[in-house]
Amino acid sequence: MTTLVALADPSQPIGVFDSGVGGLTVLGALHAELPHERFIYLGDTARLPYGTKSAATVVRYALQAADALVARGVKALVVACNTASAVALPSMHERYGDLPVIGVVEPGAQAAVMATRGGGIAVIGTEATVRGGAYQQAIARRRPDARVSAVACQVFVALAEEGWTHGAVVRATAQRYLAPLFAAEAARRHCGLDEPVPAAAADTLVLGCTHFPMLRPVIREVVGDEVAIVDSATTTACATRALLRARGLLGSDDAAPPAPPPQPAVASFLATDGAARFAAIGGRFLGREIAAHEVELIDL
Amino acid sequence: MTTLVALADPSQPIGVFDSGVGGLTVLGALHAELPHERFIYLGDTARLPYGTKSAATVVRYALQAADALVARGVKALVVACNTASAVALPSMHERYGDLPVIGVVEPGAQAAVMATRGGGIAVIGTEATVRGGAYQQAIARRRPDARVSAVACQVFVALAEEGWTHGAVVRATAQRYLAPLFAAEAARRHCGLDEPVPAAAADTLVLGCTHFPMLRPVIREVVGDEVAIVDSATTTACATRALLRARGLLGSDDAAPPAPPPQPAVASFLATDGAARFAAIGGRFLGREIAAHEVELIDL
Repeated sequence: MTTLVALADPSQPIGVFDSGVGGLTVLGALHAELPHERFIYLGDTARLPYGTKSAATVVRYALQAADALVARGVKALVVACNTASAVALPSMHERYGDLPVIGVVEPGAQAAVMATRGGGIAVIGTEATVRGGAYQQAIARRRPDARVSAVACQVFVALAEEGWTHGAVVRATAQRYLAPLFAAEAARRHCGLDEPVPAAAADTLVLGCTHFPMLRPVIREVVGDEVAIVDSATTTACATRALLRARGLLGSDDAAPPAPPPQPAVASFLATDGAARFAAIGGRFLGREIAAHEVELIDL
Repeated sequence: MTTLVALADPSQPIGVFDSGVGGLTVLGALHAELPHERFIYLGDTARLPYGTKSAATVVRYALQAADALVARGVKALVVACNTASAVALPSMHERYGDLPVIGVVEPGAQAAVMATRGGGIAVIGTEATVRGGAYQQAIARRRPDARVSAVACQVFVALAEEGWTHGAVVRATAQRYLAPLFAAEAARRHCGLDEPVPAAAADTLVLGCTHFPMLRPVIREVVGDEVAIVDSATTTACATRALLRARGLLGSDDAAPPAPPPQPAVASFLATDGAARFAAIGGRFLGREIAAHEVELIDL
């Protein structure tokens, strides 16, 4: 099964893959951490969302998408999609052998374990991510006494895609999903108590889907200031840099002092459907405009 | 291109196709209208949603799904998906020749034109349905002076799939989408005026997506009692009966007085992914429980 991969070369771009546009938040973090690298970003927009699909289907789709990036010659593969990371990473390691493949779940779990005080961690993600249990396991490996609760929050995905990042709908949705997870913490705050957080309450929230960072201000408002909110974008970027360095695959200019990032050339963009929609919605996730003509349509 | 279709026979089942489970609301209406018919329902759950995809992709997926039903021997095809009806119906008529193919857009437009008093009609649907303009055109053909406004309401789809059919989130979402469409009507009601609805205001709302009937009570609350709310399920069932009768394809028992509907045998269910999820969520749309073992997985 180990095929397709030529010897990697530091001058090659890094492939970044997501089911859609959400992974552009990870691309933004990668670009900030590795401003001298080139990136190819592939969004499998024809077949999104992955988060409601069965594991077998997610694996099949993820390998097809990764194959397309590997065929273009990438020196590493970042799986920015939480669902694909949670479900398809072992299949990718098997298929691509020595090619560095970095998912977002392990870095996200790492961030959560570093952030928690009492060991109570809540993970929110898509149905498939939560069902697969990858976050729960990755956290337990690092901190066996952690108490993890995981909740699927599909409506958050739709809100982020609709561009509804604040307002009454987002607040009511966040309350419905999150209040039960942080009830003890919220009660403590409302009563004005100032004991430490009781051990039973979650004190850390993992945004286990690349769409959720867009809703962070409202989520913050609902869970309160004392809950640590972590996402995997930054820690994934750090993990990617560390792995490239260890393998001698950092871009040649990387040792130089960071120049102002070359904004217009963040990445090449590939999508499997809807270039115009990818550009319009993707710009919100990346934090800079994407023109429809920058997006190349491919078939998987 | 006209291929695949053997001569239809009244004893054959009726094929019903949707991108997912939403079309089960149409299947329910068909079963109520045609209790002696057998149905095969196919939900293309691996590739849903169609509503955010490009027209070319929707046509390709819809034809693959329809082919699978035609290959099983159906005497008619009901396209329960608004998006596929809006975009792919001409391709289906071309491909399947004489086979009766009924979409939900024309019946929905018919229902809207019958319901409106002043000619102001608001259509809500998925992005692809609204973008394609099929409802707007179908209404204009029947009533050229109608004033149609169409709005894509993607978050409604997520709410219905999550089973959130009432409560603060649904109400806030409905207000955000619908209040601008019915502002004049709402202002009139709030002021206690009792003049007739001004000609400029919409007096009729078309639920142009099979997910939306699940949210009808909250939508009703937000738009007020004087707005007519129509969906295409019932009129599609009537149109299907009329077309089958015209073609001599009604099931043989149909002329008999209606017996109590044979509840356990509404239909055979096919899905392209996630039988368990199809059964769990589909039951809410059909209004009766579906067991996972009743759902056959197929590949398209």
